Amino acid sequence: MDELPQDAVVFGILNEITEHESRVALTPDGVVRLRKRGVRCMIEHGAGLAAQYTDDDYTHVGAQVASATEIIHGSQALGFVGRPSDSLVGHIRKGTWIIGVLGSFADEDYVQRLETAGLVSLAIERLPRTISSAQSMDEMTSQNSVMGYKAAIVAADAYGSFFPMMTTAAGTVRPAKVLILGAGIAGLQAIGTAKRLGAIVTAYDVRPAAKGEVESLGAKFLDLGLDFSKGQGEGGYARQLTDEERRAQQAAVDSKAKDFDIVITTAKVPGRKPPVLLTEEGVSGLHRGAVIVDCAASELGGNVEGSAVGTHVSDKGVTIIGAPYLASGVANTASNLVSRNVADVLAHFVRDGALAMDLHDELDNALVITGREEGK
Amino acid sequence: MDELPQDAVVFGILNEITEHESRVALTPDGVVRLRKRGVRCMIEHGAGLAAQYTDDDYTHVGAQVASATEIIHGSQALGFVGRPSDSLVGHIRKGTWIIGVLGSFADEDYVQRLETAGLVSLAIERLPRTISSAQSMDEMTSQNSVMGYKAAIVAADAYGSFFPMMTTAAGTVRPAKVLILGAGIAGLQAIGTAKRLGAIVTAYDVRPAAKGEVESLGAKFLDLGLDFSKGQGEGGYARQLTDEERRAQQAAVDSKAKDFDIVITTAKVPGRKPPVLLTEEGVSGLHRGAVIVDCAASELGGNVEGSAVGTHVSDKGVTIIGAPYLASGVANTASNLVSRNVADVLAHFVRDGALAMDLHDELDNALVITGREEGK
Repeated sequence: MDELPQDAVVFGILNEITEHESRVALTPDGVVRLRKRGVRCMIEHGAGLAAQYTDDDYTHVGAQVASATEIIHGSQALGFVGRPSDSLVGHIRKGTWIIGVLGSFADEDYVQRLETAGLVSLAIERLPRTISSAQSMDEMTSQNSVMGYKAAIVAADAYGSFFPMMTTAAGTVRPAKVLILGAGIAGLQAIGTAKRLGAIVTAYDVRPAAKGEVESLGAKFLDLGLDFSKGQGEGGYARQLTDEERRAQQAAVDSKAKDFDIVITTAKVPGRKPPVLLTEEGVSGLHRGAVIVDCAASELGGNVEGSAVGTHVSDKGVTIIGAPYLASGVANTASNLVSRNVADVLAHFVRDGALAMDLHDELDNALVITGREEGK
Repeated sequence: MDELPQDAVVFGILNEITEHESRVALTPDGVVRLRKRGVRCMIEHGAGLAAQYTDDDYTHVGAQVASATEIIHGSQALGFVGRPSDSLVGHIRKGTWIIGVLGSFADEDYVQRLETAGLVSLAIERLPRTISSAQSMDEMTSQNSVMGYKAAIVAADAYGSFFPMMTTAAGTVRPAKVLILGAGIAGLQAIGTAKRLGAIVTAYDVRPAAKGEVESLGAKFLDLGLDFSKGQGEGGYARQLTDEERRAQQAAVDSKAKDFDIVITTAKVPGRKPPVLLTEEGVSGLHRGAVIVDCAASELGGNVEGSAVGTHVSDKGVTIIGAPYLASGVANTASNLVSRNVADVLAHFVRDGALAMDLHDELDNALVITGREEGK
């Protein structure tokens, strides 16, 4: 493979060491993609292994495999699936660019630490989704999509019956009734996967616009039997629900949930307390053998009241899977998608063979959250 | 619920205590079904719990929940998912009828112990499959069907990518390539489930007749590039392959397997050493991240050379899941199907309100393997 110039931008990738993290921020495809933009890549020994890429796979495409220390000292930019730990931030050289999902909306203290450390931080969560050229950088979308697929697979694996209807000589087995709460990217992917498997799928989202998306996938939109249209503004804009209406809405969801075998909740908000989509009352109404997959479970709580990270079975025989790490569970594909996202962010900032920002550019202006060169 | 006569046949169900066994041989539906035939049912405390049926669920439909001792002493017949342990056989009263998959083809010593214990044994594995009225009694078929479904779900859950093709803003993910070895009931169900999930499915079976069944499900039949037609008998009957031909066949399967992401082997032969369908050479050719699910794994070996019960990852990054307990993993539905199988066997032998055999009946003659009343 042709040598890149000595002064090429060097992009470093470290082993992600968070528990349950099997992803890597750059896969061999990403190395190839960045080489074409004149970027040299360094990757920590073994960083890709959990995502099925060996050190040899990386060297084969021209990346340099090295130790964490070598990478930190030799790179102008570092890429992350999530974000560097506080301890790592303390070790990164001043002036280094970092790319990741940094949690900047929820954690101002962390952002301040990045600023203090003199880092140039590109926060993927700040990506303006309206810019079409930014879609290939959208790690939230790519990973939520993987999460939704995996949530349906995990639910099918945990459930003591079939998702599809099956007619056998020993009787007919009815299809599973699946309820998806939250119909964003992850919810829509969960709908699609559960439907592929033959389940009867219903979904709900507090955003009225979700109804059309859910129905376009052939799923039912949960009918709460409530009418919030009174007082809606002109032109179809939804007004905020009153507290009383919101309570009625939640009570209706909880009550309707009892008819389902599987509930998958997908309203994950990284770094922030997730909204409750199913209360304890809703959980207690589910039948023995029902399965809940809460994609938002975290130390801050989940979408399901009382859920926690890991699997537990309630007194009433409901299996509750608190699974914040679902995308990581599809490590190979999730990594390839992250890699494309992260590589495209980096490539955007490679200008004339060097890293540079242009804060007049909408994308730059949105992504750069520390180390902003305001004069430029 | 109406009382049954005091002299009604009493059918007892014990808690299945084998490791990995979550099924129960009779579910509430089966109790209802048998009541209509004048059979009273006794069930051990907690026996249905792992299959999501509480003691209350059983009493609600008129079954009596009792201790194992009470059941052994109070029943004329006992039903099993598998077969009673040697120790339990020693405790069952002489003259008791037992129904289960008894392993009579492989374990003559065990059959002799049943005979010595004075039990009337109905071996479901002896069921003549050609009798259409026996189809609802066919536990091997019902459980292999569950096993095949679950094998595909387990493979999807273990695989680090998607089964379906997905087109995203961060690139297109190709569908998984799945190879099913063994295209009996379980294999066909695995094919169907993997196809539902959007995988590209290929299957192989040494029985030439399997080709049509595989293709009728929309899967490809693995082309070994070998021609064994020379010397085939008239009328389409297959001759036995020579040893050399068989070696060539296995070598071709091993070699072709390397193109697949997932291999599911389904040739389970209860109580006997399963046939090898993929050798160590075949396993070593698979790529890092490939997943094997061996449904036949056991202490006697499996369909995959070197497989063992449980999950392990090879030096080359291939995940090998030795999973003899897959049907049990879908405990609710698997139990409902077993229940129908076992209840229908029992009901067949209830004649004029009592258990009786008629060895002139083809079904009776096949099923009764000990305690045969030859004079009748």
